[in-house]
Amino acid sequence: MRQSKLFSKITRELPKDEASFNAQILIRAGFIDKVAAGIYTFLPLGLRVHNKICNIIREEMNEIGGQEILMPGLTPKDVWETTGRWGTFDALFRLAGSDKKEYALGATHEEIVTPLVKKHVFSYKELPAYVYQIQTKFRNEKRAKAGLIRGREFSMKDLYSFHETEDDLNEYYKEVQKSYFKIFNRCGLLNLTYLTFASGGAFSKYSHEFQTVTEAGEDQIFICDDCQIAINQEIIEEQKGCPNCEREELRQAKAVEVGNIFKLRTKFSGAFNFNYKDKEGEEKIVEMGCYGIGPSRVMATIVETSHDGKGIIWPEEVAPFRVHLLRIGQMDEAAIKKVDSIYKELLEAGIEVLFDDRDVSAGEKFTGADLIGCPFRLIVSEKTLSQNKVEVKKRNEEKMELVSFGSLIKFLKK
Amino acid sequence: MRQSKLFSKITRELPKDEASFNAQILIRAGFIDKVAAGIYTFLPLGLRVHNKICNIIREEMNEIGGQEILMPGLTPKDVWETTGRWGTFDALFRLAGSDKKEYALGATHEEIVTPLVKKHVFSYKELPAYVYQIQTKFRNEKRAKAGLIRGREFSMKDLYSFHETEDDLNEYYKEVQKSYFKIFNRCGLLNLTYLTFASGGAFSKYSHEFQTVTEAGEDQIFICDDCQIAINQEIIEEQKGCPNCEREELRQAKAVEVGNIFKLRTKFSGAFNFNYKDKEGEEKIVEMGCYGIGPSRVMATIVETSHDGKGIIWPEEVAPFRVHLLRIGQMDEAAIKKVDSIYKELLEAGIEVLFDDRDVSAGEKFTGADLIGCPFRLIVSEKTLSQNKVEVKKRNEEKMELVSFGSLIKFLKK
Repeated sequence: MRQSKLFSKITRELPKDEASFNAQILIRAGFIDKVAAGIYTFLPLGLRVHNKICNIIREEMNEIGGQEILMPGLTPKDVWETTGRWGTFDALFRLAGSDKKEYALGATHEEIVTPLVKKHVFSYKELPAYVYQIQTKFRNEKRAKAGLIRGREFSMKDLYSFHETEDDLNEYYKEVQKSYFKIFNRCGLLNLTYLTFASGGAFSKYSHEFQTVTEAGEDQIFICDDCQIAINQEIIEEQKGCPNCEREELRQAKAVEVGNIFKLRTKFSGAFNFNYKDKEGEEKIVEMGCYGIGPSRVMATIVETSHDGKGIIWPEEVAPFRVHLLRIGQMDEAAIKKVDSIYKELLEAGIEVLFDDRDVSAGEKFTGADLIGCPFRLIVSEKTLSQNKVEVKKRNEEKMELVSFGSLIKFLKK
Repeated sequence: MRQSKLFSKITRELPKDEASFNAQILIRAGFIDKVAAGIYTFLPLGLRVHNKICNIIREEMNEIGGQEILMPGLTPKDVWETTGRWGTFDALFRLAGSDKKEYALGATHEEIVTPLVKKHVFSYKELPAYVYQIQTKFRNEKRAKAGLIRGREFSMKDLYSFHETEDDLNEYYKEVQKSYFKIFNRCGLLNLTYLTFASGGAFSKYSHEFQTVTEAGEDQIFICDDCQIAINQEIIEEQKGCPNCEREELRQAKAVEVGNIFKLRTKFSGAFNFNYKDKEGEEKIVEMGCYGIGPSRVMATIVETSHDGKGIIWPEEVAPFRVHLLRIGQMDEAAIKKVDSIYKELLEAGIEVLFDDRDVSAGEKFTGADLIGCPFRLIVSEKTLSQNKVEVKKRNEEKMELVSFGSLIKFLKK
């Protein structure tokens, strides 16, 4: 994409009324816009990153048998009354329609997915079933000061699993754990992300969170550096020490919950009378699990954990563009055409390029490229052109390298 | 995809409490589920169709310079007060947060996009700008009885254009008209869809709707069969006769508004003081246009206009799968393996296949294939296997053809 055509701009000014680092830098670099506290618009660059994170999650969910659906944001009161959560779920936005019918804005979707799957699944032959969506959630947060980490509106991937037995649920629960680590690896968060033991509610000793260590985190976790797992604050009192090796010396750190997995067991299948017929024809209750990851929160966490003083450093798989091509200095028409042809060649090779073809100073282009944070910065000037070369620099390295036109695509693809 | 793995099922029963044909058949065929009046979940088959329609729209919007963004569903009261619509827009869902702050659920996004683009565009050099999103909209409809045609929650592509002059707006407005016809052509709706003159409000003599003729339509239009254009009921009184040839004899028909385009002129730029600096450095007001298409409504309109007594007939570009492969009759293991290998070959050739590998009767499979409505039905039985052939039938033709394994992929790709 030609940067001269991009309507959204980089700004030097720190946004007003925005305390969170991730939102500040994403606004300055032109990835998002703030509409109200905890409510943001994704601009073209931000939407590209968000879509890439969603597609990584989608691929990994499909890999473990997930079937994608899309449930509504507007959910009727009666299903929340069935589970007893209408009056107790604090973060529900509640509203009334012109027909006086009351709704909640979906903050989670157990109340929708359970009766849905019940309509389609009757027998052990149809189990297990794995259903997920990537959808906009709404939560009536009292404070929303952490940028994209805690929004009143945010994106969520929520997977729900349905099983014949607790054993089968337990097996799948482990499979989702592995899948989540693959996702966080592809998003560049693996090294800072810990499987964290949390309270399991009434049904299970533990549930698990995936916590990424960052000063921007609103949670406290306690890490066992031997086992590379952690426990959260909720259970530190009862569970003194590592649940694996029982080591008592744990390292405290601030962290963001980027994912969670939970054995719901029969809490929701019970409320909706969701039974199945087993091999002997007997009615049995369905066992359930639920598994969340917030793509917009993951995006914010990447920014919080991967930046320097100059800007964002996007991991390769989630970067808005792989290459930021800068045309530097005054050029005659022939030279401008040559840079255009390099841009076209890269596109034709299937490389995603943001092309800074604007008539602004070299300094402004360098500053912008560092702020936006694409993995490769390519500079073409009269000087590099005279050598039939392009200057290449990786965003996360200091080293610059002159690469000849002929070997550029091979260099960028490796 | 293997149909034995698909959690959602076909049902013979007519859904209760659903008066609309499009919703009835989409529910029966397992494309959607009804959550409440005007509120639906997209199941795997339905989400595939919906995504294809969205991607057609996305491609055509990008083709005319559109830049994709994503605005929020939750919109603060103050921007609606700025334009005076908080109190007058009947279909707004209004709600309050725990901080007593009031919000509307986005029913349209002029109030969000205008201040957004104002933050990024200052000079004539940055105009025109074209910004669109594909997003979930909410409308507090008094009656929602038309299935996906009029939902309380529905998907919408909304494009907004920003111009220096009225002339430039007029030019782009014509370009969007052409783009919309390309979209409706790709969605199989071209033959039934008319550019329809509607009231232009205070600023412009006319706006335009794109109306698709169907008995399921809630609108009445008046078609000039010479010019292939129409006028809507709103202006039939003042505009007697065709606006093009002035022919007075018009054919009345029921229709669904699948798209609309509107010259907003300075209504919203004025309310938000959105000015730009022209070449002479003078402050001028920005001219705006807005252009909508509802993908979920388009999906319903396709169903209403393209079906027979047996089920849906999807146009090729929006079908959930290109091919429905049916394994018919009892088979030994070797034969089953052979059908599996045909399925894999098709997938490897990049053909989208729904594979009915279930152990149910041939009749049930035929009925299901007609109901779901993929463009090609492939039958493999012991008999066709013995001839190294597959029986191919197009959904919209009666003719069946035996095609040899070797030429199958070529046959399906053409």
